Amino acid sequence: MTLSLDQARTIIRKTLEKGRAENFKPLSVVVLDAGGHVQAFEREDGASPGRFGIAHGKAYGSVMLGMAGTAQMARADAQAYFMTAVNGVFGGQVVPVPGGILIRDADGAVMGAVGVTGDTSDNDVIAAMAGIDAAGLSAEV
Amino acid sequence: MTLSLDQARTIIRKTLEKGRAENFKPLSVVVLDAGGHVQAFEREDGASPGRFGIAHGKAYGSVMLGMAGTAQMARADAQAYFMTAVNGVFGGQVVPVPGGILIRDADGAVMGAVGVTGDTSDNDVIAAMAGIDAAGLSAEV
Amino acid sequence: MTLSLDQARTIIRKTLEKGRAENFKPLSVVVLDAGGHVQAFEREDGASPGRFGIAHGKAYGSVMLGMAGTAQMARADAQAYFMTAVNGVFGGQVVPVPGGILIRDADGAVMGAVGVTGDTSDNDVIAAMAGIDAAGLSAEV
Amino acid sequence: MTLSLDQARTIIRKTLEKGRAENFKPLSVVVLDAGGHVQAFEREDGASPGRFGIAHGKAYGSVMLGMAGTAQMARADAQAYFMTAVNGVFGGQVVPVPGGILIRDADGAVMGAVGVTGDTSDNDVIAAMAGIDAAGLSAEV
Repeated sequence: MTLSLDQARTIIRKTLEKGRAENFKPLSVVVLDAGGHVQAFEREDGASPGRFGIAHGKAYGSVMLGMAGTAQMARADAQAYFMTAVNGVFGGQVVPVPGGILIRDADGAVMGAVGVTGDTSDNDVIAAMAGIDAAGLSAEV
Repeated sequence: MTLSLDQARTIIRKTLEKGRAENFKPLSVVVLDAGGHVQAFEREDGASPGRFGIAHGKAYGSVMLGMAGTAQMARADAQAYFMTAVNGVFGGQVVPVPGGILIRDADGAVMGAVGVTGDTSDNDVIAAMAGIDAAGLSAEV
Repeated sequence: MTLSLDQARTIIRKTLEKGRAENFKPLSVVVLDAGGHVQAFEREDGASPGRFGIAHGKAYGSVMLGMAGTAQMARADAQAYFMTAVNGVFGGQVVPVPGGILIRDADGAVMGAVGVTGDTSDNDVIAAMAGIDAAGLSAEV
Repeated sequence: MTLSLDQARTIIRKTLEKGRAENFKPLSVVVLDAGGHVQAFEREDGASPGRFGIAHGKAYGSVMLGMAGTAQMARADAQAYFMTAVNGVFGGQVVPVPGGILIRDADGAVMGAVGVTGDTSDNDVIAAMAGIDAAGLSAEV
């Protein structure tokens, strides 16, 4: 099972609403499907132009490795050359920090991933969780 | 002046509505800003996974060259090696066919571009024009 | 729905058996999932070393574009620069000839793709169809 | 001498059986020939989509350098910039951690390599060794 566009829209809209409610910096949010392909993306006015790439890199690594951003960061901290090598394999498209979040179905299978960037990594996760909760989905940060 | 997220949302929503009204195949729509950077994107359910890349390539070439998809296709027909060379310069990210549409402000300056893919190139343009019209913007196909 | 490893094994084994029964040249067969990612691959003894890339390119383009090899070849014949541009977008990983075959579920959704290479493109398709039929799946060549 | 497809199949099947017997996470196994080219690959259901690239990177570096994953990791620990440079030469396709295993013939010549990924690197090696032993071949981890 993969995410629908309706689910992706809910995630993005509610993530951005949370960012405004918390007065975070302008956020950018991408939703990828179970194969790591872009389903939907929005970048708030005032965000820097390169934010698609950062949001995508957080979510893309999560799907391709089956490992969310926090776990990727731990691995990068412990064994930097491993994450460097992973980026060689995946064309430099992996950004191994919090804000890349796996979405799982009731059986634990990955349905896709969300990538948020713009404020601190911790705040990016707070906003994303609001979006994923609003869509009634289960997340792994 | 560049496009706002609100304008991008209107363009995407109305482009997809037009596609449904005309019974086109599932569409994907990207909106890029005046610097060629992704502002927003949506891919309808049932579209093939690679559609972000195609939509992006149509819009990206439009912004980077200041030339919409129809003009790019004419140039590719007349001088294929020129578009091949352009793709060398831009990392292979230019897809020179209709469906890449420039958005201009009242003074004629480029504000961004829309890329649509999924049905025939002509139908992609029809859908995109509905979206751009709904946003009250001026387009060059 | 995506393909299971068991289904992929059946497709590969039966494709290779058909190749032997028809006395085709040594074949290579890849099965990709609905996101275009490798599920399984086998290269027969005597096949040239680069056959993974060719088989992969046939199947990968099929999934990413939602268009099987025969349709891709028609597009490349009609508008060569379009397929060149597509290859720029997808990192040169698309081989637009017959032998890239889409697998669809009962609702018509793409479950994955098979790529076969080694003999003529037409014979590659004959072998692949035997494999896909043996797995009880529906194909678009 | 290089590996045959029959030998590759035995290695993969027995590696996966060992993984199931030990209750490891879903594994992915690639077998490369003496030239570093893909002979066979299988990814178990439930493995993340990017596992072909990781398995391949472990085995590919082993063949190209004539040095198995454990030795590559030691070199990366001692001299990270060397492995970074190696990845520049080999297009980023080398993943220098355990789970890349060289297969040697009776004279010590490299016949190919196995790459396993999915559980911890140590468990990946345990599974791979069961596969290589079952094929009656000699390994260097």
